[in-house]
Amino acid sequence: MKAGAIELGEAKATKGGMKKGVSILDFILRLLAFFGTLGSAISMGTTNETLPFFTQFTRFRAEYNDLPTLTFFVVANAIVSGYLILSLPFSIFHIVRSSAQKTRLLLVLFDTAMLALLTAGASAAAAIVYLAHKGNAKTNWFAICQQFNSFCERISGSLIGSFAGMALFVLIILLSGLALSRR
Amino acid sequence: MKAGAIELGEAKATKGGMKKGVSILDFILRLLAFFGTLGSAISMGTTNETLPFFTQFTRFRAEYNDLPTLTFFVVANAIVSGYLILSLPFSIFHIVRSSAQKTRLLLVLFDTAMLALLTAGASAAAAIVYLAHKGNAKTNWFAICQQFNSFCERISGSLIGSFAGMALFVLIILLSGLALSRR
Repeated sequence: MKAGAIELGEAKATKGGMKKGVSILDFILRLLAFFGTLGSAISMGTTNETLPFFTQFTRFRAEYNDLPTLTFFVVANAIVSGYLILSLPFSIFHIVRSSAQKTRLLLVLFDTAMLALLTAGASAAAAIVYLAHKGNAKTNWFAICQQFNSFCERISGSLIGSFAGMALFVLIILLSGLALSRR
Repeated sequence: MKAGAIELGEAKATKGGMKKGVSILDFILRLLAFFGTLGSAISMGTTNETLPFFTQFTRFRAEYNDLPTLTFFVVANAIVSGYLILSLPFSIFHIVRSSAQKTRLLLVLFDTAMLALLTAGASAAAAIVYLAHKGNAKTNWFAICQQFNSFCERISGSLIGSFAGMALFVLIILLSGLALSRR
């Protein structure tokens, strides 16, 4: 009977330790996702290119906010990175008190909503970037990347941080589920 | 002491009943999301319009697969609706055995991945549909909706089922978290 009680205590300690490990991993993943989305927002938001030739009336200049979808991409990434910073204190709270349940549930809800927002921004931008590279013959939309080379490279590269952030979010939600399932 | 045991038993029964309710709600939401995504896939996949005038060499005809992004939309919606049908037996299993934990965790993982896939398809398509309606003056992409009226209405309407499916998925994941958190 006593041996059983000790074993139960050990099992509880192991579970507690595992939960703490899950919470620390959650903290690290959130930090990584923050840097990814912030990097995406900044590198897209500072993109512009002016071509070296111009006529008397127009200069050929491309900026990210010429395309509304890219503006949405910047806004979505900025919101998600802001949310990630605000969620860090909760993550620390979960490391300290690993049995907390309600705050974890709250984070699952917001994480899922933020995953949806980030995915929406990233994939809408990817659709437009694809169009900028390839164009579309049927609708007479021409590929603008033939003129604006470095602009196109920059907006393509900006997507990477967002897509990495999406993968990290899926992991974060899975970890939350794992932490919720074991008491 | 005995009254306490009875109360504990009642509390357990209430929790079990609540879990069963959550599982039934989960089943209904999955069914709704299935019809939404399937409807989106079918209505987008059957869209085409032929204009009533033609020259000797070309007929003016618009189909959903003229735009690769809309093809992705159809594929993503078809995959998600297929997944939802396959997840229904798990949902029934959770109604019967409401204490199951591992299968719930598995579903959270797949649900999150499917939410990301559905959001990607829907928002990429929305970006292209917006472009078809408004065009973009800076990049010389013209609004094609002036010619292809009913085509444009159809592809805009197809988005509704997908976006409803996204909202349902967020609810489903939240319900899974709720079911995991209470034993």
